[in-house]
Amino acid sequence: MATARRSRIESLSNPLVKRMRLLREKRHRRAEGLFLAEGLRIATEAREAGVLPQWLFLADEGAAGHPLAKALVEATLAGGGEVIDTTPAILSKLSGKDNPQTVVGIYAEPKTRLGDLDRAAAPIWLVAERLRDPGNLGTMLRTGDAVGAGGLILLDESTDPYAVEAVRASMGAIFTQRLVQTHWDDFLAWLRAGPGELVATWLGKDTKDYQAVRYAAPTFILIGNESQGLPEAYAAAADVRVKMPMMGKADSLNAAVAGAVMAYEVLNQRRR
Amino acid sequence: MATARRSRIESLSNPLVKRMRLLREKRHRRAEGLFLAEGLRIATEAREAGVLPQWLFLADEGAAGHPLAKALVEATLAGGGEVIDTTPAILSKLSGKDNPQTVVGIYAEPKTRLGDLDRAAAPIWLVAERLRDPGNLGTMLRTGDAVGAGGLILLDESTDPYAVEAVRASMGAIFTQRLVQTHWDDFLAWLRAGPGELVATWLGKDTKDYQAVRYAAPTFILIGNESQGLPEAYAAAADVRVKMPMMGKADSLNAAVAGAVMAYEVLNQRRR
Repeated sequence: MATARRSRIESLSNPLVKRMRLLREKRHRRAEGLFLAEGLRIATEAREAGVLPQWLFLADEGAAGHPLAKALVEATLAGGGEVIDTTPAILSKLSGKDNPQTVVGIYAEPKTRLGDLDRAAAPIWLVAERLRDPGNLGTMLRTGDAVGAGGLILLDESTDPYAVEAVRASMGAIFTQRLVQTHWDDFLAWLRAGPGELVATWLGKDTKDYQAVRYAAPTFILIGNESQGLPEAYAAAADVRVKMPMMGKADSLNAAVAGAVMAYEVLNQRRR
Repeated sequence: MATARRSRIESLSNPLVKRMRLLREKRHRRAEGLFLAEGLRIATEAREAGVLPQWLFLADEGAAGHPLAKALVEATLAGGGEVIDTTPAILSKLSGKDNPQTVVGIYAEPKTRLGDLDRAAAPIWLVAERLRDPGNLGTMLRTGDAVGAGGLILLDESTDPYAVEAVRASMGAIFTQRLVQTHWDDFLAWLRAGPGELVATWLGKDTKDYQAVRYAAPTFILIGNESQGLPEAYAAAADVRVKMPMMGKADSLNAAVAGAVMAYEVLNQRRR
């Protein structure tokens, strides 16, 4: 663990600022194993979940006097991270937003694997296949937190969960939900090596009304790609295929909405 | 009604292309009373709902031979609209996307008022207050279509429902759901002049579990601003305030998700 450090950066051309700014690009996040989260609220959620930033950038105005910011600074320093007092212009450069938050944290990517998960730790797990939209991804993490899910398992080529937009949409759930990026074959092998019911939301044949099924814990809710839905083989491998009623012209819901409606049904059955 | 017309445009500096391209900006949409929808699928949804474009731009390759594109061309011409055969580069310029769809339609904004709504026409209506995110707005329209809602009533200063991102996220529901932009006072006066239960999703005090209430039709589901929720006065004026269970660290759901979970509860009660 490094010595506790606090410094000041005011130059837009500072090398650390330049380096951290690159974290808005996926290949740099991958190379560094780091990601960026904005906002005192999200950084506080992280702290409460025991996750501290390696670098914490604070704009003097606004953040300095806030008790949550003080707690964050102390925890970051105690955890061996570096605290950097800086300007709104630099925060804006880091986050890519015109009106930046007063706090930007740089966190290590957890790199959780399937084998790290304790499936019995939660009654609900969300599983998404080739999710394309970072907003949907973050929203699913946020929903997972709300329903008491254990985490989100991303299958195949999904959008990067550590993109700024995904982290923002998660409202901090990126720090409270476990997150695994894997492939279908590996997921299915892991799933079948233990208890767990795989429930596919599916628009094809052989489906049941989503309220006509009694779900067994742990329930793995499988949601398909935004425009194409699930591959047929994935749906076929599920223990049950379910569909929400569709009363209008459309035949599908937004992926994050479908996941949430399903997850609340499973939660509601458990509440009864 | 104008004479049926079909023409070809290949120049990026064509005056009509320049004018239609400006529809990506809200003030031009407002001034023209027009908006832009991309994609054969959405334009077909519109046609099936009886809504035809004033201008239909088609990229020759891809679209020309498709039976749905042919049906769209015929309907547009029969409806007095203009069909414009054009290039992918021009569609890209119109939609602002690198990989444009093969079809872009320019539609008249309906400008529906509260007085135009038949509240008895549907058991569910969605009402959103100061919605900020166009993706959330489009997603709520899409959910409204799925649950058989009559439409979406936008209160106060919400994001523009005719923005390209909102239209895209609606997946065509912008053409099947009624859409009214109004203010709280006018909405409440209209609501109280007829039957209707106003249900507020509310994180404050005096709430009931959202499954403990029996909802009466027409049910108006009121969802607050993404970051601030509903103003207290709005929640207080509702017939009932409800809350979804929150099992995690977070205290709220994404606005479009909250609206969907509520709407499916109301629909599910009616299905029983």
